[in-house]
Amino acid sequence: MTDRVYLDWNATAPLRPEARAAMLAALDAGNPSAVHAEGRAARALVEDARAAVARLVGTSARNVVFTSGGTEANTLALTPGLAIGTDTAGRDRLLVSAIEHPSVRAGGRFATNAVDILPVTPDGIVDLAALEARLAALAVEKTGLRPLVSLMHANNETGVVQPIAAAAELVHAAGGILHVDAVQSAGKIPCDVAALGADLMTLSGHKIGGPKGVGALVLRSGDIRVTAPLVKGGGQEHGARAGTENVAAIAGFGAAAMAAARDLAEAGPAMAALRDALETAAEAAVPGTVVIARGVARLPNTSLLTHPGLKAETAVIALDLAGIAVSAGAACSSGKVGASQVLAAMGVPDALAGGAVRVSLGPTTGERDVSTFVDAWKQLVRRLSRGGCGIAA
Amino acid sequence: MTDRVYLDWNATAPLRPEARAAMLAALDAGNPSAVHAEGRAARALVEDARAAVARLVGTSARNVVFTSGGTEANTLALTPGLAIGTDTAGRDRLLVSAIEHPSVRAGGRFATNAVDILPVTPDGIVDLAALEARLAALAVEKTGLRPLVSLMHANNETGVVQPIAAAAELVHAAGGILHVDAVQSAGKIPCDVAALGADLMTLSGHKIGGPKGVGALVLRSGDIRVTAPLVKGGGQEHGARAGTENVAAIAGFGAAAMAAARDLAEAGPAMAALRDALETAAEAAVPGTVVIARGVARLPNTSLLTHPGLKAETAVIALDLAGIAVSAGAACSSGKVGASQVLAAMGVPDALAGGAVRVSLGPTTGERDVSTFVDAWKQLVRRLSRGGCGIAA
Repeated sequence: MTDRVYLDWNATAPLRPEARAAMLAALDAGNPSAVHAEGRAARALVEDARAAVARLVGTSARNVVFTSGGTEANTLALTPGLAIGTDTAGRDRLLVSAIEHPSVRAGGRFATNAVDILPVTPDGIVDLAALEARLAALAVEKTGLRPLVSLMHANNETGVVQPIAAAAELVHAAGGILHVDAVQSAGKIPCDVAALGADLMTLSGHKIGGPKGVGALVLRSGDIRVTAPLVKGGGQEHGARAGTENVAAIAGFGAAAMAAARDLAEAGPAMAALRDALETAAEAAVPGTVVIARGVARLPNTSLLTHPGLKAETAVIALDLAGIAVSAGAACSSGKVGASQVLAAMGVPDALAGGAVRVSLGPTTGERDVSTFVDAWKQLVRRLSRGGCGIAA
Repeated sequence: MTDRVYLDWNATAPLRPEARAAMLAALDAGNPSAVHAEGRAARALVEDARAAVARLVGTSARNVVFTSGGTEANTLALTPGLAIGTDTAGRDRLLVSAIEHPSVRAGGRFATNAVDILPVTPDGIVDLAALEARLAALAVEKTGLRPLVSLMHANNETGVVQPIAAAAELVHAAGGILHVDAVQSAGKIPCDVAALGADLMTLSGHKIGGPKGVGALVLRSGDIRVTAPLVKGGGQEHGARAGTENVAAIAGFGAAAMAAARDLAEAGPAMAALRDALETAAEAAVPGTVVIARGVARLPNTSLLTHPGLKAETAVIALDLAGIAVSAGAACSSGKVGASQVLAAMGVPDALAGGAVRVSLGPTTGERDVSTFVDAWKQLVRRLSRGGCGIAA
């Protein structure tokens, strides 16, 4: 895979060297629940990583529950079985936006009829007025309903950063709890549990340069508790998640979190500069190129490009043959390319939505990657004008 | 940790060299759901591993659902949401034995009052007469109740192998489904889905020399389906388990499964010979030493030793200081040593149960490990006779 241009960091980020080293050192670890020396050494690896992950989001180690990934963390979080302090009655209603990750839109452990979907603006921003109206309509103070709201910090397809702190104020004023899916934002922009006003936050290891197969559910404080574990039958993770800990992956996640926190201030602006250059060059080289949500706050690394009449699925394959890895929207489930629910929720016309190609950069992306992509984007268009491969029928 | 004597393989087995190599080769893998070259290469790693794990238990790759470990696989399996063929009505009642792993005794996703606990004999064997009587009492054919029965293939503490094929006949005659937790048996004794009569089977990576953080739920055939995923919101694992696949751990699991299958015929008898030598020597060196369930079929690698008046918790610590890793019963949750529910279910008197030390061997265990343990066991007894450390108050 040498000389390949990898621009699909939002699908999975290459493993950071620090994470690799930490994993190698942890591959022979014992069972952290064992009391002997091998067990205690494994326990130390897990707890060091927990502290590092906590630091990335500005909280304490005791608030971090390790899971097998972001999807599990989301499913764990979205449960009626949440307690705040002495309030153990649980949650009655789940509100999620229309652009959430499928694992959030699936509603976790809420009954289907207890889940409300909130609209987004044409720019892909959660509609706060609609959130406020929905919370008011639930009339929490009259009905005694206890809402849980789940919003992503930044969208995986468009990169649009959501107004989480403002949403948190609305949610808390209505007696609700806010879960924030920070899988795509962590390590790319500042992501602080308290500053965002999140009560629960989801993180994924492999999106920040750690390994696949590990994630975390971060709790605002000891005041918030998951009273209904998803994976149960063991006392691990303070009872919130049973099963022998994935020591090597957790160690790699911790090392990646530490490296991401260290690099954040420099890597963010650097990626944004490259991303902006890519968009400007693509627009200049290919008239008709549209950058989705170009005018609003986005992650520094994400660009969702489209062109009228382009067919994303064949475009991705053509780019792959040209040595470039990108994706058609999210690459998070079946490998099949379907219509983007995110773009549908934004009201993007089919002709543009059907051609949307997600380009996502990382800390090691360079100018050559950008220029190679822009050249290939030009090639696609040339074929387009001839009616060849890469074009919608 | 050089020169340590590791005799806690039932807690976690050291990583096999083959698994380490497979993991190293997979650490840079892409997202298996991505359609580009990086994604397809990752997909190939996952599917090769799936075939290897399937071969270990005599089934086809399509029947293997990867999970984050044995505990998750057990929780996934134990759900009312199981379908057989066109029968999608689900399961009404769960029967588990009193010596199951905590993740099975927790009942998965069944309501507490839908779970029955079956007794075991004093030798630690599931009481088949009780199973038959319980199935008859449920009067499945009259009431239309649909039982799911969950039994382990071999017990993690005693090593006692359970009469699974006979149980399967009873369960199937009563219209039930049988789930078999084969976490401790796989790789140690033959473990064939069809020969055992299992409808669902749980496997764990790190118990067979693969990494921690990966396991599998194996289905008898495409006829059995989990209609209620535990982790949801993505099409991975044919819809049975959402979330980006843990590619490196899955690759390591596959390599470990292949190695375990290859070594089974030789490693089993070799471990049994060492284990028998250990037991004979410990009994000879220390009068009063009792081997739990010595007279029945056990795993070749497991010995549960005790001595009247010994206190297991301090014995484990004393052995650790002497360079030997063993455990007091199972080491699978809190690190705290509590009373063994397995021994309580067998009716082992408190004086013996409280001193039970589990010694579990592996394919690389040697004679020096055994002799070092026996010497240390003698030391413990010498202190015992002086009333020192390692003795129950």
